[in-house]
Amino acid sequence: MSEQWLDEIKWTDDGLVPAIAQESGTGKILMFAWMNREALAETAASGFAVYWSRSRQKLWRKGEASGHQQQVKAMYLDCDADVIVMEIEQQGGIACHTGRKSCFYRQFVEGEWRVVEPVIKDPADIYGA
Amino acid sequence: MSEQWLDEIKWTDDGLVPAIAQESGTGKILMFAWMNREALAETAASGFAVYWSRSRQKLWRKGEASGHQQQVKAMYLDCDADVIVMEIEQQGGIACHTGRKSCFYRQFVEGEWRVVEPVIKDPADIYGA
Repeated sequence: MSEQWLDEIKWTDDGLVPAIAQESGTGKILMFAWMNREALAETAASGFAVYWSRSRQKLWRKGEASGHQQQVKAMYLDCDADVIVMEIEQQGGIACHTGRKSCFYRQFVEGEWRVVEPVIKDPADIYGA
Repeated sequence: MSEQWLDEIKWTDDGLVPAIAQESGTGKILMFAWMNREALAETAASGFAVYWSRSRQKLWRKGEASGHQQQVKAMYLDCDADVIVMEIEQQGGIACHTGRKSCFYRQFVEGEWRVVEPVIKDPADIYGA
């Protein structure tokens, strides 16, 4: 496959692009992470979301530890060619490392961030004790 | 109002946080931009999305030129406290400077980015000739 579609991305100086994972069907935003060229290429080839972990400085095949893979149904690019949106099916129904469905589980209410989503599964059970 | 909620944000070294604007009701992701502390504070106080324009290095009150303001219905913070999601009502139904509803108007299909959303209004008519 030609790599022109990868060349069209306006990567940051660090060679990254932000990626937003949105639940297919509901539109719920589940997480936000970064991809490098290799991660995005592997995402397209495998059909499962692969990110670049900035903290660990390595490819992060989402679900490799938790089993919570993200099957990519569609990918979109924005007008500036510097942000990716993915429609995904979230395996296990849990995207967040805290054991919640979405990473965006805190809502701004009356001047503070309040937790508005339950923990579905204890992280100790997800990642092993 | 206490500013503790602003102190809880993990700003980048440049003092910014990414913000995702999602259409209330449909969940459609309309745009992605950045906020600094002042932009986020003004967003919360005014109820309308205010970003930080990195290219112009100034506050960007969305809609100030186009009239396409974004009324904020809800705001969420992620687990790492470094990304904001806003549920918004998009005035004029157009978020993108290209005159499309969403900035994410290109879909990855058969190895290329294809435009899949129509221009609703000519940008020349939005921003003045």
